[in-house]
Amino acid sequence: MTQRWVRFSHAGKTAFGTLENDEIQVYSGDMFASPTKTNEVVKLSDAKLLMPCQPTKIIAMWNNFHALGKKLNLSTPPEPLYLIKAPNSYHNPNEVIRKPRQEGKVVFEGELAIVIGKTATGVSEEQAMDYVFGYTVANDVTVADILNRDPSFAQWVRAKGFDTFCPFGPAIATGLDPKTLSVKTVLNGDVRQDYPISDMVFSVAQLVSKISDDMTLYPGDIILCGTSVGVGSMKPGSDVSVEINGIGKLENRFE
Amino acid sequence: MTQRWVRFSHAGKTAFGTLENDEIQVYSGDMFASPTKTNEVVKLSDAKLLMPCQPTKIIAMWNNFHALGKKLNLSTPPEPLYLIKAPNSYHNPNEVIRKPRQEGKVVFEGELAIVIGKTATGVSEEQAMDYVFGYTVANDVTVADILNRDPSFAQWVRAKGFDTFCPFGPAIATGLDPKTLSVKTVLNGDVRQDYPISDMVFSVAQLVSKISDDMTLYPGDIILCGTSVGVGSMKPGSDVSVEINGIGKLENRFE
Repeated sequence: MTQRWVRFSHAGKTAFGTLENDEIQVYSGDMFASPTKTNEVVKLSDAKLLMPCQPTKIIAMWNNFHALGKKLNLSTPPEPLYLIKAPNSYHNPNEVIRKPRQEGKVVFEGELAIVIGKTATGVSEEQAMDYVFGYTVANDVTVADILNRDPSFAQWVRAKGFDTFCPFGPAIATGLDPKTLSVKTVLNGDVRQDYPISDMVFSVAQLVSKISDDMTLYPGDIILCGTSVGVGSMKPGSDVSVEINGIGKLENRFE
Repeated sequence: MTQRWVRFSHAGKTAFGTLENDEIQVYSGDMFASPTKTNEVVKLSDAKLLMPCQPTKIIAMWNNFHALGKKLNLSTPPEPLYLIKAPNSYHNPNEVIRKPRQEGKVVFEGELAIVIGKTATGVSEEQAMDYVFGYTVANDVTVADILNRDPSFAQWVRAKGFDTFCPFGPAIATGLDPKTLSVKTVLNGDVRQDYPISDMVFSVAQLVSKISDDMTLYPGDIILCGTSVGVGSMKPGSDVSVEINGIGKLENRFE
């Protein structure tokens, strides 16, 4: 059964629960450790939706879609290539992505985000899906001009680590088959990305297995699956949304 | 006045305080926000020293010492070049650095660590030192073979992000002039690094200012200043220590 989990603030408190039509069924305890259904229900229109979990780390993949790799003339990587998004970049749905003080072209990257549910160290590909709690939606915002301006050192972490540069949410959906999903990014009403997750170089199970071989993954940690074709720049004053079928739509303004 | 702050566990509880000879003067509250001296004193020999703070992020500099840049034929960077250490790499003093499941040469890098004391966003170089709480000692452990094995993407985050790959501590020393410090790394009794902080390309004030221009820095966040000449590999079964005058000695075993 698919459930869609959200975190939210309401009446001065932060809580979490499941989306049920235009209401949130509130739960108590830990989202990742058998949470308990309460008697409380909050109207969705009365809640401010927050990022749905609080990761200890967000790992972001590079060159993980065949279509984008082909377009950029990149060879298919033999192992996952990744960086980490700085925690100051974690950002709520519906809040404003801020233009950095640094000048440079800012680009959107709509992405599927894997949310880890159980502590994972060195798990096999066969076991990996047991460690996935669900999926959410992310925008891996990047100052493109910074990435390669120093020929001696690619500045991945910096270019993607500015404050507000990693909005994600609003919901984490459970029980989905990632191969059936597609990511659609809309900028000011124009569809700019619309690509299938089935085109990934490394599958969800492979990413969880291989990354857990390097780094212990904790409940709430996120793996951004990388983006595909259609990445483009945003001008201040833009509205950007990323939508994935069965999960939901992440909306932010860029100023 | 110089103080040396430590976190520790004792009698099943975690606490913090200042080192005073062979005792710890216990404080309550928040180390970074006017902590209160208590009546409690714990014998240093009865305490297990922990990493002295719990950073939301550890930013690690590359190519920040003239001597190492010269040795490696690198040009002096026009701006700080950095990555982020994965939080699963944060590690306590005196605990074992673990050989990854991945094969590859593991190297030590003794480094000065700047500990931020106040939330810093876009602070000027002139103001920057007001945001520095103090300094601690770190070992920026790295699987050297992973760094450049993919010609399309330098794997800095991964090579430096394995579990246990960032021990730091035990003490944070306040009131020091960083230009007077030097970093000494000893492997199995042999001095392998002994370099002055005055050789840094970007000073402490410049690092804090320039990085806070990109990313908000929070109390307890750490900037690793980068390493200099003498980096070398460790074989399992090695003892490694990093010592900085006025701060203390970080000791770990590698297995």
